Amino acid sequence: MSSDPSSATLADLGESGLVAKILARIGESTVKSPNLEIAAGDDAAVIGTSGSSLVLSVDMYAEGKHFRTDWSTAIEIGRRCAAGSIADVCAMGATPIGVLLAIGLPAATASHWVGEFMAGFIQEAENAGSIVLGGDVSGCDSIVISVTALGTLASGTAITRRGAQAGDIVAICGRSGMAAAGLRVLQRGLRSPRVLVDAFRVPELDYSAGSRAAKNGATSMIDISDGLVADLEHIARDSGVGIELDTKKIVVPAELVSTAAAFGADPMAWILAGGDDHAFAATFPAKKRLPAGFEAIGTVLEDSIGEVLIDGVLYRDAYEVSSGFQHFSS
Amino acid sequence: MSSDPSSATLADLGESGLVAKILARIGESTVKSPNLEIAAGDDAAVIGTSGSSLVLSVDMYAEGKHFRTDWSTAIEIGRRCAAGSIADVCAMGATPIGVLLAIGLPAATASHWVGEFMAGFIQEAENAGSIVLGGDVSGCDSIVISVTALGTLASGTAITRRGAQAGDIVAICGRSGMAAAGLRVLQRGLRSPRVLVDAFRVPELDYSAGSRAAKNGATSMIDISDGLVADLEHIARDSGVGIELDTKKIVVPAELVSTAAAFGADPMAWILAGGDDHAFAATFPAKKRLPAGFEAIGTVLEDSIGEVLIDGVLYRDAYEVSSGFQHFSS
Repeated sequence: MSSDPSSATLADLGESGLVAKILARIGESTVKSPNLEIAAGDDAAVIGTSGSSLVLSVDMYAEGKHFRTDWSTAIEIGRRCAAGSIADVCAMGATPIGVLLAIGLPAATASHWVGEFMAGFIQEAENAGSIVLGGDVSGCDSIVISVTALGTLASGTAITRRGAQAGDIVAICGRSGMAAAGLRVLQRGLRSPRVLVDAFRVPELDYSAGSRAAKNGATSMIDISDGLVADLEHIARDSGVGIELDTKKIVVPAELVSTAAAFGADPMAWILAGGDDHAFAATFPAKKRLPAGFEAIGTVLEDSIGEVLIDGVLYRDAYEVSSGFQHFSS
Repeated sequence: MSSDPSSATLADLGESGLVAKILARIGESTVKSPNLEIAAGDDAAVIGTSGSSLVLSVDMYAEGKHFRTDWSTAIEIGRRCAAGSIADVCAMGATPIGVLLAIGLPAATASHWVGEFMAGFIQEAENAGSIVLGGDVSGCDSIVISVTALGTLASGTAITRRGAQAGDIVAICGRSGMAAAGLRVLQRGLRSPRVLVDAFRVPELDYSAGSRAAKNGATSMIDISDGLVADLEHIARDSGVGIELDTKKIVVPAELVSTAAAFGADPMAWILAGGDDHAFAATFPAKKRLPAGFEAIGTVLEDSIGEVLIDGVLYRDAYEVSSGFQHFSS
């Protein structure tokens, strides 16, 4: 889509022109699926299956709520939308295979913005081994993006939030708190430390971590999107257990320490509440060796059901807890 | 969700309250899938498969573009969003099995509106034999709805837009033009004839028509959403054929005749340009008996490639053609 004059808007391009450009860009993808029978462009896509189970999830991203076009480039927003949605199918232990994309756009949107968004979206889908299976575009008052992610796994092997057992090890794969810190940096009108801002703009995901955890006997797993503790509470509630984290085992990156000090904040509070990194949290039987990339940060308790304790103290008592981003707060 | 005080808004309910209500409503669905292994509520849903092919499609519906809350009830909007998306998987010849829903909502939206929308959405999904496999909610400046529909069919049996052969019969299943007429009635500030307005508000779909057409040897098929002629042009272009319609074979409902007369319009123009009815158009070998519900309206030509002729005259010459709803017109 680089041939657009950079001043062209969707009003110039029209819906069919936009769809044709997006389909052409999808057709250039280098990721090929042996199971893809009919690609995007007909009424629907068709994928063959062979006795495996399908894993499906949808996420919506709204301008001003999940991203701002002055904080992130179109490429970064595209990558982040793909990553956040695909993470959900990975967190079931599945191998991601495809994504469907629906975008609502104001008529004044620059068409090169859409081209760059698609480039980032497809790049990140390819990073995860996924192809774009379909899409839709619509006029809209602000930019809204909906991503459906699809994965497969051997029947009966999905890892839910419901299987954690007392005595299990709680482990995390990926960073937590970096994106939350990056968001605070941006909210103050700053652009550095760059490593934090970048973590907010595009989460860095290990897309095979979920299936690796499943193969290594994970008893429960979740994609951290609401926040490390908030999502472990989902596991605790759904599994009927308690969870205790040991902060001595949690590595605090140097940039988090220095930025928290500059902001008068506690870096551990950012780690415990941070969600936008899309790290994976899972529980494993204590006798199992943890899969590569996972680090033990706590244990599963038989009491304190539905609760998360930090070094023996209830999270809500130990930290001044904000309830996270509230979509509908007025 | 009928226990909400009718004045409650999403700002009162909060995101987690809204999600809990929606998950509870989905759990009450009477449609059960033997293949559903893990239902909505975890990171992703899981469906088993057994050697069949999957069919996937996504559509986005935006307030002010696809629907208006003063023209349609929340139940009607929910039904229409489900129907329009599921129609796409039917048009491949598939049996619909599931849907995923993402909704963007302003904080001031009444929570009973969302409850009624969900009731209509689930009702129509059930009409199609589909279960709700997952969803997401987000804050948004206006109401935006994204629906991913999923279906299955025997491997290699999908009916695309590319298989029409010269000499085939062109047939339609369902009404065309009724919804377009209903939209014009609403645009004039009127509310009757009710049968037309209702056709715009909720398309009446035969969800087994697509698989019936596939079993009866359809060579190509499409869900009519852009307009009868516009969508037949897709088949003509993609199949490398021409299509001729015989207006003597097209039944014009009495309400369409009388309303067109009152508006000084040609009812056949509404039928040929109408899209929101989501009827199915398909081509069949001339020697095959048409499946139940399909009526012959034309034939496939070996010349006039990519064109649709009306009684021997190019559509664009015979009718004053509007290019349909333009999403990004400024």
